[in-house]
Amino acid sequence: MKIGMLGFGTVGQATVSTLLKNAEEIGRRFGGTVELVAVATRTPAKATGQVPAHCRVSNQIADVVNDPQIDVVVELMGGIDDAYKAVMTALENGKHVVTANKALLATHGNEIFNKARQRGCIVAFEGAVCVAIPVIKIMRESMSANRIESVMGIVNGTSNFILTKMREDGLAYDLAVKQAQELGFAEADPSFDVNGNDAAHKIAILTSLAFDVPVNLAAVQMDGIAKIHIEDIKYVETMGYRIKLLASARQSESGLFVSVQPTLVPLDHMLASVNGEMNGVHIKGDISGPTFHYGAGAGGTATSSAIVADLLDIGRMLHCDARHFVPLTGFAAPRNSAPVYIAPGASVAPRYLRFTVNDTVGVLATISSELARAGISVDIIHQDVPKHGHTNVLVITHDVALEALNQALHSLQKADSIEYEIVSLPVMSN
Amino acid sequence: MKIGMLGFGTVGQATVSTLLKNAEEIGRRFGGTVELVAVATRTPAKATGQVPAHCRVSNQIADVVNDPQIDVVVELMGGIDDAYKAVMTALENGKHVVTANKALLATHGNEIFNKARQRGCIVAFEGAVCVAIPVIKIMRESMSANRIESVMGIVNGTSNFILTKMREDGLAYDLAVKQAQELGFAEADPSFDVNGNDAAHKIAILTSLAFDVPVNLAAVQMDGIAKIHIEDIKYVETMGYRIKLLASARQSESGLFVSVQPTLVPLDHMLASVNGEMNGVHIKGDISGPTFHYGAGAGGTATSSAIVADLLDIGRMLHCDARHFVPLTGFAAPRNSAPVYIAPGASVAPRYLRFTVNDTVGVLATISSELARAGISVDIIHQDVPKHGHTNVLVITHDVALEALNQALHSLQKADSIEYEIVSLPVMSN
Repeated sequence: MKIGMLGFGTVGQATVSTLLKNAEEIGRRFGGTVELVAVATRTPAKATGQVPAHCRVSNQIADVVNDPQIDVVVELMGGIDDAYKAVMTALENGKHVVTANKALLATHGNEIFNKARQRGCIVAFEGAVCVAIPVIKIMRESMSANRIESVMGIVNGTSNFILTKMREDGLAYDLAVKQAQELGFAEADPSFDVNGNDAAHKIAILTSLAFDVPVNLAAVQMDGIAKIHIEDIKYVETMGYRIKLLASARQSESGLFVSVQPTLVPLDHMLASVNGEMNGVHIKGDISGPTFHYGAGAGGTATSSAIVADLLDIGRMLHCDARHFVPLTGFAAPRNSAPVYIAPGASVAPRYLRFTVNDTVGVLATISSELARAGISVDIIHQDVPKHGHTNVLVITHDVALEALNQALHSLQKADSIEYEIVSLPVMSN
Repeated sequence: MKIGMLGFGTVGQATVSTLLKNAEEIGRRFGGTVELVAVATRTPAKATGQVPAHCRVSNQIADVVNDPQIDVVVELMGGIDDAYKAVMTALENGKHVVTANKALLATHGNEIFNKARQRGCIVAFEGAVCVAIPVIKIMRESMSANRIESVMGIVNGTSNFILTKMREDGLAYDLAVKQAQELGFAEADPSFDVNGNDAAHKIAILTSLAFDVPVNLAAVQMDGIAKIHIEDIKYVETMGYRIKLLASARQSESGLFVSVQPTLVPLDHMLASVNGEMNGVHIKGDISGPTFHYGAGAGGTATSSAIVADLLDIGRMLHCDARHFVPLTGFAAPRNSAPVYIAPGASVAPRYLRFTVNDTVGVLATISSELARAGISVDIIHQDVPKHGHTNVLVITHDVALEALNQALHSLQKADSIEYEIVSLPVMSN
């Protein structure tokens, strides 16, 4: 199998290094050789010393995607527009593609999959989502007997690292971000991770596979972690929960609800044990029951594990016709009904609420009667010890539609006794 | 794809039910139909009402394995000898095989794999190990870039349920077994599960895939949970550990160590959170880093999830030649060195020791000097509060070779101050 690589950053270098380090095992697993014959990178000088002697290095994408001897193009450029053009050309030229580019697939996945179907090519992308967790293979192949009921994951290591630091070391959000940056777990501008964009890309891809719907990034209801207070992290822990940036997709009678939002996860749930920069994905099938998978979500070496696995899958299929391949979204035939998404506001979940109140007689009554008036049923209500004339009232509701809750909170926000913005977070459904 | 089924017990019935329940999705995933055309069972009358109308039911294995129209034989008979004959005949006849029979593969896996290679057939067995966890696919396909360093799993739901009940409800071993039996998690004779045999079958199969060695049940060093005391479960919890029946296989410089034994698992390790009848498997690759997978380990419906996934994998490959299949053990070419196993006694791990002593001055000195004399380094030593003239001394050692430790314990066992048999359990290595 002859491969060409686009981009030679951390992941590209790690992939070359993995192919060399475990060449003996990889060769025996494959029953053949994986040969890197061309690399296109903006900085050819850097690559030249690291690639095999016979491998051509250039700064022209066309030198890879148009090279007739190349069987598989490994796209590791990052970015969207240039990568899209490169991948579409490679497919047009009948080449299989391996990509770790989640932004590309979240925005252009449908066109790329269509082009691949048309050309009888494989597009493999295990490295695009939770790299060391083979969630793409698990959903498409291992769960093929199932209707998937829900996918819930901690899929962004940066925000999980920050939340873990806040909880374990009692750091405020800003300090935890700074520490993540110092340790290389967050970018200089961390907004793409902490706002939920990166997780949204991943859950958009997973939703497509789980529920047999087109990739639809716009359908992801997204919220980030920048407004999470250390005191909520502590409060919910005493109530049996842990705050995680949860990416989730769930099928209900009223439609699909796809979201990325800071969520209360029960402490005894596997997802609560996913700490630091690690990733975890919980998938529930109607036949398999609940399953959970854990591993590194980023890093050059871990990503190369997924990329090389994709290469060997392709290697076995290299001279097969396309009907032998695993279908791109797991389904070989199209669905016969359009997907329905739950509208923002219509999503239903239990919610955690924190009201900071001035220590006034009757404030509990104000809160509970307003919630009752709105038909919102309360599971737990707890008033903390007052300090300096203020205190916190903590509520966990039963299932409530977000819009109804927000209306009630809007009224309560105006009450004289309630100070600051009311905190409102969803609790994970099982 | 036309399939024939051998055996029609819980798993067979569940598989038929899953194929019916999700026929629409399964058909679209496959892009074709999965048709059950024949069943052989000892009780044909029971099957007749449950299978599709055109499906033949007989009590003759030959009616399935020799039927020329059948593409895939699904072996769900259980037992070893008859199943072995049936599978070998099916392969000889050029049929692909799906089996959930771990005992069969643990004892005759090598012959079956050789026959399959010879005949160009697929043998799929995701249902044989930790059914809802796709550990076979993960190891053979998703981890193909890796040298696997260790596999550690809680792979027997019965013993995990019993240990969980003992810990959570403070039940003695016998009572916990009784409760497991009442709830259907243990057989009337639970010995096969609690003695570690079932787990040994599974780790023998996993070891073969992880380390590219023949299936070798005899190499599994096995110990069960029948001697686990409730007080050790409580003691180790205060020391930051949980006792689990751990099946593990690990490559070190001196060889492969494959074992099933009650083991102290650190409380913050994912495996410590696998409770009740659930299964969990932790796999560490040199490239992927640590990964962990969790799901149901038994049950007809969960097993059918694995069986149907195997069927669809085969369905796609039905008319391919064998070089396109995933290799049976993940490797297409043979290894060029013989595997080396670590001998019993030569295994090295930290150990938990409990000495029940009569409350005599100097007993701590006796223990620690004997351990020191034997060159055994102590990590934690703790003496419990004396009760009725007795007390417990708890020790966690650093790494120690089992043989050296056993010699020291043999001497200590003779000391007047030490009563009852010394408890000795390994602590999980990370």
